Parts: sequence; structure tokens; C-alpha cells
Amino acid sequence: MDLDLPHKTSYRVIYGDTDKMGIAYHANYLRWFEMGRTEMFRHMGLPYGEIEARGIFLPVSEAYCKYIASARYDEVIVVETTIDPAVRGGMKFDYRITDEKGEKIVAAGYTKHAVMNGEGRVVRPPEFLVEAVRNFLGG
Amino acid sequence: MDLDLPHKTSYRVIYGDTDKMGIAYHANYLRWFEMGRTEMFRHMGLPYGEIEARGIFLPVSEAYCKYIASARYDEVIVVETTIDPAVRGGMKFDYRITDEKGEKIVAAGYTKHAVMNGEGRVVRPPEFLVEAVRNFLGG
Amino acid sequence: MDLDLPHKTSYRVIYGDTDKMGIAYHANYLRWFEMGRTEMFRHMGLPYGEIEARGIFLPVSEAYCKYIASARYDEVIVVETTIDPAVRGGMKFDYRITDEKGEKIVAAGYTKHAVMNGEGRVVRPPEFLVEAVRNFLGG
Amino acid sequence: MDLDLPHKTSYRVIYGDTDKMGIAYHANYLRWFEMGRTEMFRHMGLPYGEIEARGIFLPVSEAYCKYIASARYDEVIVVETTIDPAVRGGMKFDYRITDEKGEKIVAAGYTKHAVMNGEGRVVRPPEFLVEAVRNFLGG
Repeated sequence: MDLDLPHKTSYRVIYGDTDKMGIAYHANYLRWFEMGRTEMFRHMGLPYGEIEARGIFLPVSEAYCKYIASARYDEVIVVETTIDPAVRGGMKFDYRITDEKGEKIVAAGYTKHAVMNGEGRVVRPPEFLVEAVRNFLGG
Repeated sequence: MDLDLPHKTSYRVIYGDTDKMGIAYHANYLRWFEMGRTEMFRHMGLPYGEIEARGIFLPVSEAYCKYIASARYDEVIVVETTIDPAVRGGMKFDYRITDEKGEKIVAAGYTKHAVMNGEGRVVRPPEFLVEAVRNFLGG
Repeated sequence: MDLDLPHKTSYRVIYGDTDKMGIAYHANYLRWFEMGRTEMFRHMGLPYGEIEARGIFLPVSEAYCKYIASARYDEVIVVETTIDPAVRGGMKFDYRITDEKGEKIVAAGYTKHAVMNGEGRVVRPPEFLVEAVRNFLGG
Repeated sequence: MDLDLPHKTSYRVIYGDTDKMGIAYHANYLRWFEMGRTEMFRHMGLPYGEIEARGIFLPVSEAYCKYIASARYDEVIVVETTIDPAVRGGMKFDYRITDEKGEKIVAAGYTKHAVMNGEGRVVRPPEFLVEAVRNFLGG
């Protein structure tokens, strides 16, 4: 998690995200990781919908989240997302969620994804995906 | 809503269903209506998955819920479901949610559904569906 | 629903909002109504959190949604929200969800809300709320 | 994860749990972990609501899930839950999700929880909790 986390997207916590402890329910953070990942793909010039349109799917194979502070009702959270360049075969995204000003770390985590074709079989990451990642990571 | 509501299914409210007001978030009731509807179809001998396997889909076209009491964390709620026999073309289901003992009405509502084929076109309800409903309603 | 719907907020549909029919699951529309309502309150200069801080809660007492078109993955939807001026005692909000360009109506509906104090008792809408609404509706 | 996982609870996947890939959306597994944990506490004779009533809260501090197979619409999943006896201070629960027959492992994971008092401060696990866990683990 000492990578630069170059892409940022924000979201405002709604009532429906909270639970009776008065804070955002922990499962929702995985939704926010998805938001971060999706917007990062769009920023890369390769919206996730286009990846699927080309017959490639990236189902989540692992997810981890460390809850550091609490996200509260009506707070704006910022999701920072990057790609772990060390992972081949599949993909790994690292996330950090902060408050609106980026001063307080709310949560951090990652998701790992298989690269699959339309028949649900694991395949090598196709060249268009490898190249988009390479460009994004600035190599 | 003065129909008999002959089919019952139950569910226990989890933390993730609640919001910061300490009660179940209102959107979740539509999930519970789905649970009631699904179990009613299974009880009819026609699981919803089988309807889809036969190429028929029942997307929701309208949903209404009146929230009468509050469903709280860890309470068991009971969803009573029936079919409105007056509706032709599409389908309408009526729901009543009570506490575990059936003494307190928590909510009541309905959903209306289109009958569609796999291409997303509205079709006449197929005979296998009409017959299953007729048997269920005891006519 | 022939009112002007003066406040607009937008949201991008995520994977977690969709269901196996490939479209947004119907219960999520009530979350989007909440987003519209919340942003309208903020726009009125009276964020909902401030209403609660003053000891007033607005639990949903009824919700209705008519699903007209489908909201699909990665589409931006726009939630238009207004207040029904005819309703006294409680509050009623009308919603219209359109596509990003405002050309296609995706859904329309309303929610009704009780006005409650911190003990869960129904109260008359307090003056600060009545006045904020009056200003918003331009009277 | 080579512990016995002695407590089991089951759940049927609804339409609202699925996503457009046709399988259960990954964030929902954390809800199912909650169901497993909750039912295990009830089985221990110490429902989670009672823990809170005694002024102790167990917010999630970490969550991890490995997705091994897919949970599909209308399938019954079984959540097996146990407590990791090696963790002191906080609590750690291990989960395994299988199909209805227990033949196929669908997912596995864990959650870690802080032990907090009503003011949100981390405290030592109170004796009533330590004892309930000890009894459950058969020591």
C-alpha cells in the first residue's frame, strides 16, 4: 500500500449506507472499491463496460478491507485506486478511502480479479488490457 | 388488500438492513417482497427460476409500500404474499409484513410485473403460468 | 407529477446495483430517491443532517415507484426531486429519474414522510422546516 | 481455516443479491458472514443484541473473502462460522460458505472486530463475552 494511488473518485454516504451503529455498514466499502476501480478504468480510456463488450470479464476473486476510521452519514468519501504492477495473470487493485480533504484515512484494502472469457474460463490478460494498464502505470 | 394472503415466509433482520435511525432501511422492504413472491412461486410448484428457464421474465413495473410499524434489528418478520386475481396481462402481488407472531402489521404493499419474453417484449402470460396461478388461487 | 421538478442530482449505476436481468435492481431506485431528496434539502440550505440535529426526523411512511425504462450498468441517471405543496402534516416528495440527457424517463415515484421528534412521536412540522420549504417552492 | 467450523446457518440467494454477471455480487458475502456470526452468537446463548444491550459493540475492523465458486440465484448457501481462539483483545471469526449439501466450497474468509464500549472506546473483552466464547469453544 505504499504505492502512489493516482486515481480519485468521490461519493457521498447516504442513509441507506448506514447501520444502527450510526456509521456506514462495512459491506458497502466493497461497493465503493468498485466505484473507484470503475472510474479508474474510465480514466484509463478503457471503461469496464468496453472490456466486457470485448468478451473479457474480471470477477472478484479476493477482497480485503481494513476499517480504520468510520464513514458517517452525509460525509463525502474519496476513493483512491491504483493497480498493483507486480500481479500477472489476474489483476490486483489497491484502494484507500479518505475523507473529503484527504486528511483522514477511513479504510484501505484491495481486490484481486480473475481474467475470464465469456464462457467463464480463465484466460491470459488480452493485449488491449495489458497495454491500457502499462500506459496507466506510466511505463 | 382484503384478500387472504395465503403464503408466508420469514426473514430475520440483520445489521446490514438497518440504518442510523436504528430501524430497517425502507428500500429493504422491496427485497423482502421479493422473498415472499419467490417462496410463493416455489410453493405453487413453479419456482421463478423455472419460469425464466422457459423464457419468461417478470420485471417489476410498479412497487408500493406503506410503512406502518418499524422492523428492528434481529427481529423475525413474516412476509405474507398473494396474487391479485383481478389483474390480467401482467401480474400483481399483494404483500403484508408482520412481526413473527403475526400480531403487528409492519408494512403492506404490492408490486406489479410485466410478462416479457427473452427479447424484452411484453407477451401474453403463457398457459403454464396462468394455470399455476389458477391452481394456487383455488379456482 | 405535472409539477416542475426543480432539483437535479446524478448518479452512475454500478455493477452492485444490477441484477441478473442485466438492469438495475428495482429496490435501488428508492436509494436514488433518497439521494435526490437529500441533495434537494442541501440545495434548500437545510441539509437533512441539520434537521436531525434539531431533533426532527423524517422516516418514510410510503414509497411508490413506477419503472418505465431500465437503468443499465454504467449509465448516468438524473434524479429530479420536488416537494408536493399540497401535503400538510407530513411531507411528500415527487421524483422523476431520467437518463443523463433528460430525454428518456426511466422511472417516476414519490415518498411520503412523517415528521417525528426524537422520541418517535409525530409532531407538527417545525417553523424552520416550513419556512425552508416555502422558500424553496418560491412562495 | 483448518479449524472445525461448528456453527451453520443457511440463506437462499435472491434476485437482489445477483449482478449482471448472473452471480451473487461479491459485497453480499460480507452480509452472509454477518448472518453466520449472528446465528453463532444466538447459538452460544448470547444474541448480539444482548451484547449491545450490555454496552459492548463489536464493529468490524477487517474483512477478507476469497471467492472460490459462484453463488447463483435461488441457490441455498450454508455459512459455517467459528471463532479463532488465538485472537485476544479483539475477536476474529472464520467463515466458510458452501452449497446446500456442503459439498462445494463457495467462499471462505474472516472478519476481525474491535471490542468497544458505548463511547466508542476500545476495551478489554468483558467477562460475560470471554466466558461465552470459552464455553462455545469447548474449553
